[in-house]
Amino acid sequence: MKRSDRLVSLTNYFLENPKKHTSLPYFADIYDAAKSSISEDLVIIDRVLKQEGLGHLQSVAGAAGGVRYIPDYAKEKSGQFIAELMNTLADPNRILPGGYLYMSDILGDPKMVKQIGRVLAATFSPLEIDVVMTVATKGIPLAYAVASVLNVPVVIVRRDPKITEGSSVSINYVSGSSRKVQTMVLPKRSLQEGANVCIVDDFMKAGGTITGMTSLLEEFNANVKAIGVLAEADDEEEDRVVESYTSLIKIKNVDIKQKQIQVLPGNIIDQENKPANENRAADKN
Amino acid sequence: MKRSDRLVSLTNYFLENPKKHTSLPYFADIYDAAKSSISEDLVIIDRVLKQEGLGHLQSVAGAAGGVRYIPDYAKEKSGQFIAELMNTLADPNRILPGGYLYMSDILGDPKMVKQIGRVLAATFSPLEIDVVMTVATKGIPLAYAVASVLNVPVVIVRRDPKITEGSSVSINYVSGSSRKVQTMVLPKRSLQEGANVCIVDDFMKAGGTITGMTSLLEEFNANVKAIGVLAEADDEEEDRVVESYTSLIKIKNVDIKQKQIQVLPGNIIDQENKPANENRAADKN
Repeated sequence: MKRSDRLVSLTNYFLENPKKHTSLPYFADIYDAAKSSISEDLVIIDRVLKQEGLGHLQSVAGAAGGVRYIPDYAKEKSGQFIAELMNTLADPNRILPGGYLYMSDILGDPKMVKQIGRVLAATFSPLEIDVVMTVATKGIPLAYAVASVLNVPVVIVRRDPKITEGSSVSINYVSGSSRKVQTMVLPKRSLQEGANVCIVDDFMKAGGTITGMTSLLEEFNANVKAIGVLAEADDEEEDRVVESYTSLIKIKNVDIKQKQIQVLPGNIIDQENKPANENRAADKN
Repeated sequence: MKRSDRLVSLTNYFLENPKKHTSLPYFADIYDAAKSSISEDLVIIDRVLKQEGLGHLQSVAGAAGGVRYIPDYAKEKSGQFIAELMNTLADPNRILPGGYLYMSDILGDPKMVKQIGRVLAATFSPLEIDVVMTVATKGIPLAYAVASVLNVPVVIVRRDPKITEGSSVSINYVSGSSRKVQTMVLPKRSLQEGANVCIVDDFMKAGGTITGMTSLLEEFNANVKAIGVLAEADDEEEDRVVESYTSLIKIKNVDIKQKQIQVLPGNIIDQENKPANENRAADKN
């Protein structure tokens, strides 16, 4: 196969297989090309990925040497996306009873969801994460978007047990905003003991739902490595029960009577825990 | 930008923007290249996409001329994927009470979900579809996977109304297998009158849930253009209430006592409604 054709095929391969380690001989074999030619291809792809702020190719040295695509989402791209999102959400027609915002159109747009997932995943990428967890229903697409970049599975916590999932572990928790006792259920088979978990959800008010998920994870001896939400409500009357999290957007001063709303950037804008782009050293897996 | 770099960048662009029409002058501008060079790039990308069974680039003639990526999933790729899926599902440890199968691991794997979405979307691609619809919870990731290829939004029907979605339309329906009366709710804002809808779900037994969604769509004067499920239960004792649908997998003779199960290919294998790959004629939008 010619270089030009290989570049198209390889680009598709890396975008489809984030974080997956592949050996150079494998590529040399399927493309019937010299390893040196493949190496040159990889230099080109790495350069363009970096230029476009989409991550880089990481070389893995040694006998089992090869390469893998480490996705990223450049700060300026994230910032621009969040600014557009703020603009969309600031529409007062979105205000719903209880100080909620109508966001189903955003969460229903696969492209928006993919971008939200990329922004969150870029923040979590340096962490060792085995699984992304969310609670039904609205966080589900976001959880898949993050998991797809991190190349890990998703587990979904439900509020009602389902016969189609076998035996499960359930806990009761107090909802942060409504102070009601609620239930959360996770099938036993769906999470391994000691797993490193990233929690993803669409909206966080006082944080009761996320605290519920954290308690459920204790039953599995799992570790909460990261928490990411699309939007948080910045409500001074309520005590936030979750402390360490990443949000893209902050919703403040929702005034139903005046039809006013204030949308601010979330705390992701201040966080400086982006992965080091230039780190191309040998890696464990 | 050099051809090699452009090929990487353009490949990423098309994979990210299925079905989106883009003009050649736009590419010529952002890459600072002649339109003739861009055209040559497109020939290369089109050739590789076809070779790999991933679809093709469709030229759009005329003043508003340009190109768009029409995703596909080659028959042999679909067939191979379905064979692997059958193999995975045939494990008797998956049998759950009530003749259900444990599929949460498959539905929790973003890569599997993406592939299921591609296989279904390739079948639905020639149809005019405005929106993909599913019912919470397990069909959600599949619905996004299909919608992302078709480049349309997703709407999610719930079994309980949610305050965070505004006013809604609800219907009652009889579950096909349990004969219980159940409720389905869809927020008014989430679907336009007269929309062309593709229904996606994970599992179909008698088809009551899908019939429920169809009734709900009547309230919106919407048209059901296609129905796609990952798996159907082929149970001779039950009358299927849904007639026209596409399934990847058929589950038969689940024997809980004997721990036996029969997994067959779904009806997608017989259907001959794949899009014509070579059709590169001018298109409406």
